Formats: sequence, C-alpha cells, structure tokens
Amino acid sequence: MHRTPVLTCATLDLMAGASLFFKCENFQKVGAFKMRGAANAVFSLTDQEAARGVATHSSGNHAQALALAARLRGIPAHIVMPSTAPAVKRAAVAGYGAEIITCEPTLEARESTLADVVARTGAAFIHPYDNDRIIAGQGTAAMELLEDVPDLDLVMAPVGGGGLLSGTALATRAMAPGARIIAAEPSGADDAARSLKAGSIFPSVHPDTVADGLLTSLGQRNFPIITSHVEGIWTVADPAIIAAMKLTWERMKIIIEPSSAVCLAALLERPDQVAGLRVGIILSGGNVDLDKLPWSVSPKGP
Amino acid sequence: MHRTPVLTCATLDLMAGASLFFKCENFQKVGAFKMRGAANAVFSLTDQEAARGVATHSSGNHAQALALAARLRGIPAHIVMPSTAPAVKRAAVAGYGAEIITCEPTLEARESTLADVVARTGAAFIHPYDNDRIIAGQGTAAMELLEDVPDLDLVMAPVGGGGLLSGTALATRAMAPGARIIAAEPSGADDAARSLKAGSIFPSVHPDTVADGLLTSLGQRNFPIITSHVEGIWTVADPAIIAAMKLTWERMKIIIEPSSAVCLAALLERPDQVAGLRVGIILSGGNVDLDKLPWSVSPKGP
Repeated sequence: MHRTPVLTCATLDLMAGASLFFKCENFQKVGAFKMRGAANAVFSLTDQEAARGVATHSSGNHAQALALAARLRGIPAHIVMPSTAPAVKRAAVAGYGAEIITCEPTLEARESTLADVVARTGAAFIHPYDNDRIIAGQGTAAMELLEDVPDLDLVMAPVGGGGLLSGTALATRAMAPGARIIAAEPSGADDAARSLKAGSIFPSVHPDTVADGLLTSLGQRNFPIITSHVEGIWTVADPAIIAAMKLTWERMKIIIEPSSAVCLAALLERPDQVAGLRVGIILSGGNVDLDKLPWSVSPKGP
Repeated sequence: MHRTPVLTCATLDLMAGASLFFKCENFQKVGAFKMRGAANAVFSLTDQEAARGVATHSSGNHAQALALAARLRGIPAHIVMPSTAPAVKRAAVAGYGAEIITCEPTLEARESTLADVVARTGAAFIHPYDNDRIIAGQGTAAMELLEDVPDLDLVMAPVGGGGLLSGTALATRAMAPGARIIAAEPSGADDAARSLKAGSIFPSVHPDTVADGLLTSLGQRNFPIITSHVEGIWTVADPAIIAAMKLTWERMKIIIEPSSAVCLAALLERPDQVAGLRVGIILSGGNVDLDKLPWSVSPKGP
C-alpha cells in the first residue's frame, strides 16, 4: 500500500473558514482507497480459499482494487461490472488480468450475475463494503491521517455503501475519541442520510448523481457502526459537487473523482458548522474519464 | 515558497525503462516554478526601487508570480499580457491585484507596450528569464530536487526563454557535478535546439505548439549558461506532448500544463538514451484552462 500524503491548500482554507487536511487516496494504488480493503480481504483468505479465486460486483474502484490484489497474490479474479462503468475503469480492470462480466446497471442484475459467477467458479465473494475485512482495511486511511495530524476536530468521508465511512468511524473513535465524525452524500443518492434519520436501512432507489462511486445502499455490517459513531450526514447537490471537484483540480492541482468532492462541497455550504475547525477529509479516489469531464457535458446529455 | 514534493510513478517508470523523479512545481505558489524567480527578484529590490513597483510582459505564469510577489512586498505590479493568454491565468493575475495591460500576441507588441508602461510608472522591469536574480531563483527547484534525490544520472527541464533551464543547469553543476543535463523543447518552437547547434541565438519565429509556456526566444544571459552546461535539447511534437500530459493526469493523478509534459514526452521517444538511468524532471507548472483541454479540442479548431 502507498502511505498517501496529506495535502493542504491556503485558498480552500480561506474559502471554508477552516483548516482542511486532505488525505490523498487518489494517489493510492489503483487510484482509490478501495485498494486498502481489497488487499486486506484477499491476503486474509486461507490458501485453500484463495486457490478458487475471488469475485465481486463493483461500479469501478473496488473492481480494480480486487483485480490487482488478486494478481499480487497470484489468484484469479472475476469482476461483474455494470454496463455504465466508465471506460477508464473497465480498461484498468482488464489490464490487471481479471475476467470482466458485464451486466445491467441495477443492483438486482449485479447480484444475480455475481451469483452465477460464484456458482461456476467457486470463487470467494468479496463484497465491496459489507465485509469486516474490507471495513478494517478502509479504516487505515483515517488511521494514517490521524497519525499525521492528530488534533483534528472533525473527520469527514463520503458515504455510498458505507465501507469507507464505517472504517473511518472505527479508526477515528480509536485514535481521536474526541473528534466528530460527519459524512457527506449526494442529494441525488441520499439513502444513507434517510437511513440514519429513520434508524433502519433505506435502500438506494434510482440514485441520480455524478458521484458514481456513491450509488449503492448501506450494508448490513456498515449501518450499525455508522449509527453508533457518525454524528450526521450532510447532503449536497450535483452542481455543487462538480464545482468543488473543479475547484480542487484548479487550486490543488490534483485529480479527484466526483465522489471525492462531496465532502468539500457539503462543508462549503455549511460555513457555520466548520468555522475555525481543523477538518480531515478523505479524498476517496482519482479515477476519472478525462474525455468525459462533468463540467464539459450537459448533466442530462447523451 | 513551498518546498514541493518529488513524486514517482511505477507505471511511468515501466514505460520509460528508467527511474523518474518528478519535482512538482505544479504545486508551487501560483502553480508554477516562476514564483521562485519572481520572489527572488522582487525581494532583492532596494526600498527606493520597490516603491515604484514592478512591470513585466508574460504569457502567463511569470505574470501571476510577479503579481503575487509584488503583493507580498506591498508594491504595485503592471503586467502586459498577450490577448491569447488563457483565461484562467488572466483571472489569477487580476486576483493578485495587479494591473493588466493587454497587447497583441507578438514579441514586438509585448516589448513596446511594456516600454510604455515603464515610462508611465517608473516601475522596475523584471524580465521573465533574462535576469540574473530570476535565473538564481528558478535554480532552487533543481537544488531541492538534488537535496532529496542526490544520485541522479540525468536532470531534465523544458526550455522556452531559458530561465528555468539555466537555473537548473547552474544548480545541477554545483550540487551533482557528474549528472548530465538535457532539455526538452516542442518541435513547433525549437529555437533553443537550433541555437545550441548553431552556437548563436536563433529567434523564435512563428512558434506553433500547445506548450504555451515555451514560445519565447532564448535570453542573452541564459544562452551562454546553457551552451556551457547543457548536453543537448530533445525536441518532440505536439501530439506526443498532449499524450504525455494526459498520461501524467491519468497515472499520477496530478494536473500539469502542456509545457510540463515536454520532458516526459521527449524521453519516452528515446528509450535507448535513458534506459536504466535515474532521471530528475522538473514539472514546471499546472495552470491549465479546464474548459479547453488539448485532447478534447481539435488542434487547429476555433
């Protein structure tokens, strides 16, 4: 694993009225934090389990991460990907030597296709987030962040299925018990915010957001961790997410994907909530199709 | 000044057949190495000189750097910019509080407009590269690179007017006397390569390249330093420059401008010349108009 840097930006601090510390998982292997959980899961298998390979369904970064982790251990990987996955992510998965099985972009299609693959191969299903070893692996990003910057007032992570958020919450509670933990979520895929308010898991139905890594519903293992430790989930609309992404590119000179911009977008809309705080933000990844940038196409265009 | 990081990338090393160490001046203040020279020049002025302000002509990064350095010293800056300068660079200069005077995009128009400004204001003209204090300041990037990675076989920098290259050459000769020094230049603006071969300065006539920071002719102070210490200048065409820029964005997840991609593009075309070497590369800057990326517009389009 790379020990990714923590970067700061005077201009963004000024805009936020806070001190922001960005944990750059966009610089992680495969370009996303997902490598942490995938490596932990793959290298925790017994030799007998590993020999039959691993399988998963993923809209992108987990797919690349599992493919690379499997290659590093020398075992097969079978990846079910929705037909809507960005071309750059499909190419990367293929480049790591994994078998790609394409399906319709619905949770049902993903799960039934995955079941077929597992039945055919005997591979171990490594769920993208509803898996204890995945959660533990993802938590190492916040662990490193708090080792580098121990005195954070607030730690933020985006939430999709909840793998990164539940790992971040556990690591933060262990390393900085007094720090607040807040997640951010696109308002077009706000199932986690509704779930946290309702006290039970709301499925993600027809999510519609540019943040393509945050489309999924909360997992069974992730939800109780989140309800125990996460103070709140801030939602933010796509235009603000795109603007925060572009701002990060322009001012920090780093490539982040839309899912990584959700925390910055949410806190820039809540200056009263963060004024004067030291805020750690997990930048989840940097895998973007450079031929299809969200500010150069109309949001509903072809 | 930021002490910018030195980054590496396993994928690019594999493609180059060499170990590449990228000095990230795209993360420097104003997004480019130019801040080093401008700050050195502005803070070297006497109080009496400084009181009348500073002036320059620049296609972009030097303009921003001089504007910010002047603001940090609390003196006026007058910046002559060609009408073709990217919008993002003009906006940044204005944001630092400098006066912008627009002129036609020719060297003659830039120089005559600048002469008018100096006559009107009495400001000190800070040439973008033909200035000893500018050269000394730019050399600090290579100095830091060699402090971090002392055992480089080869140090590369792009060449436009020669400010960065002459500073890089002097710093490298002082810190790593055995290291080779090679520059890279767009074949559409190859005046430096022709000058080095001919032994006298060839002016840059009708330069045509995507690398908009490298359009200018070599300076009188820069040329003898370059002829004394630089082994050669590798030229490379725009399509390869654009491909190397996109490759850097995709694999390193950092934003670099076209001028910064020229060294990587040139060495990827010369595998025999760099095989097995430890190569330091100055990434000169990261100021890009994100609405006009070179791979999403036709090269000669409107």
